[in-house]
Amino acid sequence: MTVGIVTVERKVLEKNDALAAQNREAFRRSKLFVVNLVSSPGSGKTSLVERTLDHLRGRLSVAVIEGDVQTDLDAQRVAKFGVPVVQIVTNGGCHLDAKLVQDAAQNLPLDGVKVLIIENVGNLVCPANYDLGEDVKVVVASTTEGDDKPLKYPAMFRNASVLIINKTDLVPYVNCNLAELKANALKINPSLTIIETSCTTGTGIAEWCGWMENKAKGISQKSEEATNP
Amino acid sequence: MTVGIVTVERKVLEKNDALAAQNREAFRRSKLFVVNLVSSPGSGKTSLVERTLDHLRGRLSVAVIEGDVQTDLDAQRVAKFGVPVVQIVTNGGCHLDAKLVQDAAQNLPLDGVKVLIIENVGNLVCPANYDLGEDVKVVVASTTEGDDKPLKYPAMFRNASVLIINKTDLVPYVNCNLAELKANALKINPSLTIIETSCTTGTGIAEWCGWMENKAKGISQKSEEATNP
Repeated sequence: MTVGIVTVERKVLEKNDALAAQNREAFRRSKLFVVNLVSSPGSGKTSLVERTLDHLRGRLSVAVIEGDVQTDLDAQRVAKFGVPVVQIVTNGGCHLDAKLVQDAAQNLPLDGVKVLIIENVGNLVCPANYDLGEDVKVVVASTTEGDDKPLKYPAMFRNASVLIINKTDLVPYVNCNLAELKANALKINPSLTIIETSCTTGTGIAEWCGWMENKAKGISQKSEEATNP
Repeated sequence: MTVGIVTVERKVLEKNDALAAQNREAFRRSKLFVVNLVSSPGSGKTSLVERTLDHLRGRLSVAVIEGDVQTDLDAQRVAKFGVPVVQIVTNGGCHLDAKLVQDAAQNLPLDGVKVLIIENVGNLVCPANYDLGEDVKVVVASTTEGDDKPLKYPAMFRNASVLIINKTDLVPYVNCNLAELKANALKINPSLTIIETSCTTGTGIAEWCGWMENKAKGISQKSEEATNP
């Protein structure tokens, strides 16, 4: 790539970061905890969202933004849970950006919502660089992808706060050493919180939802302290 | 994105296409059949390359270019088979491009080699748009990724000549309807050749290698006819 193109890329990222800061400020005003869910295609992000919505029903109000290159299949799956959901179709684009999320959020009824889950395009590379204004990036790695992915795609694991190791029910059938996968992830990012899940059996869903509930509670308390110091 | 940026992107692609045409011409002169292997991370591309090299040992001479965002883990795996291999590390880049492949090919001893396999970065979006000068794109989809990926990532399936459905041994344990996966793929690209494989059990490897041997033979014959018309 020539210097000129790198400069344009930097400008795109700078513009994105400015919009992400606006989103973050708006999310804070709405007392929302915002999760940016990233992974390879087919790691089970949408199944995780379904399990999460099922587990949190009546306990915590969640809204969802779905991102895909094409189709609204995921939004259709999520809508069955009766939560606010918007589908972003990037039409070839390889990641969500702050502008797309800003537009989508304006179409979501967020009154009373405590958690916003943004399911990014399935891509372990490009979404790592695009801040959407989220509180945390949560990366989902499926055991079927093997144990070397944190080393091969380090930016995503470096920028995430939580690693969800999904499809743990398939470990007996695939070539994935769980201890090795965790060690590789912690080598890239020693402060990662790691949660093991199976969306087929339900293992780990309570732990993951508990983690999110705690974070959402923290944001509510913080904003109350700000109002009544 | 602004018009300015789209223009830069178009220029990048035009420049890439020109280099890809040079690569294609050079590959033709070397009577090479060239495969661009694309997929999500963890679908089993490298395992497929290993199985292929094992099956074709002593029958067909193969060289490999490995592409990854970071690490030379895959080139190390491939080198054990004693074939010429070069690792491209994109250092954050989300796809291989024609220039990277041109540079890599110049470092490969290609004398007597009949097939060049280029294993792209694991990414179901961006590599779809970058011609490397290959004869065919072969997309690998793992059954663990579910059956809806052709609809969600259509460009990759539209631009491929062959779909390898890998990890068929896991079908009993995952939520993937094989008939549905094939129907979705053919809806996007009716001329796809579909081959089912399991790199764990070896199912389908002979079929896949046979397909490749036929293509390589076709290229040798064509260039002989050109020499002795």
